[in-house]
Amino acid sequence: MIVALSGGIGGAKLTVGLAQALPAGRLTVVANTGDDFEHLGLAISPDIDTLTYALAGLDNAALGWGRRDETWSFMETLAALGGETWFRLGDRDLALHVERTRRLRAGQALSDITVDIGRRLGARARLLPATDDRVRTRLRTERGWMDFQPWFVGLRAAPRVAEVVFAGAEQARPLPAVLKAVERAEVIVICPSNPFISIDPMLAVPGLRAALIGARAPVVAVSPIIGGRAVKGPTAKMMAELGLEVSARAVAERYGGLIDIFVADEADAGALDGLACRVVLAPTLMRTNADKVALARAVLDAAR
Amino acid sequence: MIVALSGGIGGAKLTVGLAQALPAGRLTVVANTGDDFEHLGLAISPDIDTLTYALAGLDNAALGWGRRDETWSFMETLAALGGETWFRLGDRDLALHVERTRRLRAGQALSDITVDIGRRLGARARLLPATDDRVRTRLRTERGWMDFQPWFVGLRAAPRVAEVVFAGAEQARPLPAVLKAVERAEVIVICPSNPFISIDPMLAVPGLRAALIGARAPVVAVSPIIGGRAVKGPTAKMMAELGLEVSARAVAERYGGLIDIFVADEADAGALDGLACRVVLAPTLMRTNADKVALARAVLDAAR
Repeated sequence: MIVALSGGIGGAKLTVGLAQALPAGRLTVVANTGDDFEHLGLAISPDIDTLTYALAGLDNAALGWGRRDETWSFMETLAALGGETWFRLGDRDLALHVERTRRLRAGQALSDITVDIGRRLGARARLLPATDDRVRTRLRTERGWMDFQPWFVGLRAAPRVAEVVFAGAEQARPLPAVLKAVERAEVIVICPSNPFISIDPMLAVPGLRAALIGARAPVVAVSPIIGGRAVKGPTAKMMAELGLEVSARAVAERYGGLIDIFVADEADAGALDGLACRVVLAPTLMRTNADKVALARAVLDAAR
Repeated sequence: MIVALSGGIGGAKLTVGLAQALPAGRLTVVANTGDDFEHLGLAISPDIDTLTYALAGLDNAALGWGRRDETWSFMETLAALGGETWFRLGDRDLALHVERTRRLRAGQALSDITVDIGRRLGARARLLPATDDRVRTRLRTERGWMDFQPWFVGLRAAPRVAEVVFAGAEQARPLPAVLKAVERAEVIVICPSNPFISIDPMLAVPGLRAALIGARAPVVAVSPIIGGRAVKGPTAKMMAELGLEVSARAVAERYGGLIDIFVADEADAGALDGLACRVVLAPTLMRTNADKVALARAVLDAAR
């Protein structure tokens, strides 16, 4: 069994590679829920959604988010009615949010809903939220405190970030199925996601970091920074604003004490000496499906 | 000013005729809200929606409900996710429900939302709910008590109906703007809607029936029954199950004491003698737009 912790886009690419590199039924993906929010009365879980669509082969590669074969009648009409359109929801994507919200209100756990929807859509891995409890990433910015999605999507990540907190994390409990998967895992992968807003919200749930450290499996992190730049998303900008060096090395140091192996791009070869963990170099930029599978194999080989 | 009380489909056709027969700004349509319900977490107002789309020229004539130029990606995907699909919601239609629900939760009144949405979509009349308070049509059937839409749409109106009640009507207050429009009206029209489930829920709101009776304008009802049959919908079936004769005459008698003029189809000419109100015969079947305008003119002529 392999366990992969992941945020959205970048991490999702590696999970797709892992799902193909492994026999069926061997991969459990643990998703960040810190970006989850309520919008238009719907419970939206952006990272779970991105991972579900990617693992089911339904992701919209052209957009980089949402579903393929999408239509936009809902959003067009909502705009005509004067509704809130800053967060774009395709007609098919909307069905997932409506159905998830209905089930949550009926008392089902987010984890059960996520597994069932993944199964119905044909996801090639078991996908679990890190916790069924509410954890919310909150950002202290130059414009005050705000939730993640209004900052990231609504304001295009423009306001400078001074602090990141995970509201509710201290009261949250890790999902028992995640703890069990971590305990039994042969390899634990931290995907190339933003450490501060994709991985940290999961590690902030009491017991999860300790479970990773205590697991018999090696923990392998893949750098989301290549040559001092983030492939996509606000990782590099946030690191700079938080006073951190924008480098693969800074990511590895952030995971200090947690990881056994750090997989970084060959572009960063010269700047990773003296880390406490083992460093493995591999091409980490995933443009094609072959890139995803190759990186997945490199990660698994490094750990075995 | 002309005031027209209406339920969904049949009534909506006459309101479309009235909107064309009158100068702009002269028509207020009062909508039944007894069929309103919560579905998938959304506040759905079937009669308001049908009237809004019809008055904006956006109704789906082929289906007989919903919007034209509709797409169905949401519903297709919801089915794939195992969601509730007995009540079909098109992608564009859905935007109205989501936006209405958002505004209701933000504290806006149904009437304000209805007027604003009608304006944005280009409705050719002012559309108001009879009340902003919650009134719900409940049916006692051979399968027990049920709400209207699960009976009408979910079970295709199959279970026999023994009793109809309007939960909440006694505590509801008529919309002040409706009372004012009724008081100032030159003509009040009761559209060819189902008396029991489209008009009665409005008349059950304390004060509304008295306002109609006390108004200076003549009250003209148009028969929804033509030659002993309902044009569409469950009116005739319900009348029979409730022990009433299925006839235009029985409709007129139901409105006894309330209406001054009853407009019935020429097919029912022989069976309307001795009614307390004046009877006017006109072709009441509305197949074409010209039919709608002609019936509207006949109704207005009868009242003047």
